[in-house]
Amino acid sequence: MPSKRACAAIGIDLGGTNLRGAVVENGKLVGEPVYVETPDHPEKIVDALVKLIEDLLDEAQTSGLQRDAICGVGIATAGVVNCDTGEVIGSTGNLPGWAGTKIREVVEARTGLSVHVENDANAAAYGEARVEELKNLHCIVVVTLGTGIGGGIVIDGKLLHGRGWAAGEIGHMSIALDDSRLCTCGLHNCWEAYGSGRGLLATARELLAEKNDEGQDSTLFEVGEAELTTYKVFQEAKAGDLLACAIVRRWHEHITTGIVNLTHILNPDCFVITGGLSQACDLALLKELTVEKALHNIGETVEIRASMLDTNAGLIGAAQSVIDEVGAGVPARR
Amino acid sequence: MPSKRACAAIGIDLGGTNLRGAVVENGKLVGEPVYVETPDHPEKIVDALVKLIEDLLDEAQTSGLQRDAICGVGIATAGVVNCDTGEVIGSTGNLPGWAGTKIREVVEARTGLSVHVENDANAAAYGEARVEELKNLHCIVVVTLGTGIGGGIVIDGKLLHGRGWAAGEIGHMSIALDDSRLCTCGLHNCWEAYGSGRGLLATARELLAEKNDEGQDSTLFEVGEAELTTYKVFQEAKAGDLLACAIVRRWHEHITTGIVNLTHILNPDCFVITGGLSQACDLALLKELTVEKALHNIGETVEIRASMLDTNAGLIGAAQSVIDEVGAGVPARR
Repeated sequence: MPSKRACAAIGIDLGGTNLRGAVVENGKLVGEPVYVETPDHPEKIVDALVKLIEDLLDEAQTSGLQRDAICGVGIATAGVVNCDTGEVIGSTGNLPGWAGTKIREVVEARTGLSVHVENDANAAAYGEARVEELKNLHCIVVVTLGTGIGGGIVIDGKLLHGRGWAAGEIGHMSIALDDSRLCTCGLHNCWEAYGSGRGLLATARELLAEKNDEGQDSTLFEVGEAELTTYKVFQEAKAGDLLACAIVRRWHEHITTGIVNLTHILNPDCFVITGGLSQACDLALLKELTVEKALHNIGETVEIRASMLDTNAGLIGAAQSVIDEVGAGVPARR
Repeated sequence: MPSKRACAAIGIDLGGTNLRGAVVENGKLVGEPVYVETPDHPEKIVDALVKLIEDLLDEAQTSGLQRDAICGVGIATAGVVNCDTGEVIGSTGNLPGWAGTKIREVVEARTGLSVHVENDANAAAYGEARVEELKNLHCIVVVTLGTGIGGGIVIDGKLLHGRGWAAGEIGHMSIALDDSRLCTCGLHNCWEAYGSGRGLLATARELLAEKNDEGQDSTLFEVGEAELTTYKVFQEAKAGDLLACAIVRRWHEHITTGIVNLTHILNPDCFVITGGLSQACDLALLKELTVEKALHNIGETVEIRASMLDTNAGLIGAAQSVIDEVGAGVPARR
């Protein structure tokens, strides 16, 4: 049994490319995160997880942390996760064969530590929502803007998991009726098909075709289909290209639609915008558009903030789940 | 102070047309509800509220309930309500001048009873979510289909109120991008502008214009603009008119869009469909469309149920809030 006084945990973010691990104490990383390439087979992934945990335990001891100060391991992974059993119950895209793995059971058996497993977007949301400035708020929605749109909802300090552990699939709310955008999930009209990086490029292609017909000038017309990237669009917008600016503006409008919907449904205290494209996002413009598009007095009060943890959010959030469970007297092993 | 053992409360549903009150015990009405016409001035509404409470107390005593078995009064009212202060803080449409009224303060002072004030849609949601079959579920979304769309979200037995007491404005999530439907709230594209009674009629007018151009036959073409009602459309659909059937089908698709969005965001255990138009709603069709339009494994698990309390939901839910607060040792007066 971990000590009740323990206040550090190992956090691991398991992605399709690599495993990133670190010891987390008081909401912060102890030392630099350690990266390991993600193996291509579920059994080898488990081996890599166990090896990474042991390496981090050794490292922690070197830096003066006693083994019993580590109260457990939090693992953030792609896929739908049953947090009660620590099993991946839904498809995982970049981790073929990973669904069905009883991560908690096997890692606990091999390390002797309490393990908590969480969906990666939810873990990141939990990490963001537990930072000092936000941890006492009633409701926080974390929106991850990248190739797709992910997210997590934290209410009264707890992640909203939903009946089938699938809450927070905010990227797949429908914001259009015309079926003109097919999402990678197979559905049409998803927020993700508009507000993500892929959505931005789809908007760019639409506007380029439209404005070409109208004879508008833009450096983007010189860019081939294969070279049209989100980076290129943002770069040209920054350089003042009017069409690129219009695309970026439209992208902000699409992001706003989802934010306004979540605002009307949850009336949260705060949105945290994170993910690879969050840096390209003008939060002041999002706020302005939210006020314009939301019911009176509701849009005005919602805060839209930048991520505090960036790429470490998943790792920190997973570790923090374990720390909070132990701190609350709830063992990570339920 | 009300007795801890008290398990009955007075519930009042305050609408633009009338006040409906009853004593509620064990989640059920004691006797028939009492109706009083809603006066046209805030001060007179308060007088009517106090008089109704006193009449209900007298009636309760006649039927054998001791005054100290009544632990308080729950009032469901239109408008955004700060439940901590019991004050109406947002506009109230059908109750001009009512915003700003410190309902709890004045009614407590005049009756000596603890008072809890709740937004009417939220009170109805709470009532529905507290029925025996549902009260142990994790997340319940109540959708009120009428002239508009209202709703309430109950998570782990508690109403989700949001930062500004405005959570559950589900009717104003945006489901379209083309700005072709203006909602009564002043925004475009609201779910309510499609899935409510008004939305059904807008869809009817659109389809009638479209099919008229195509020369389709329908008894609805013989109906004048003023006579085109939701009732008429449902009646003709029941009689087999193909165009009326197409309108009703499209209406179900629009309702499904909002349900699917809420499913992706909250992954609730259950939706409860209530309100004046809920009887016209084919819940089996809604479920079928939800499975079709939601992510795999998420739509399949969600239940879509009919209301158990119908028009008494608000009254019962408001009374139940007081009963639960006292039962939990939290006095209704906070």
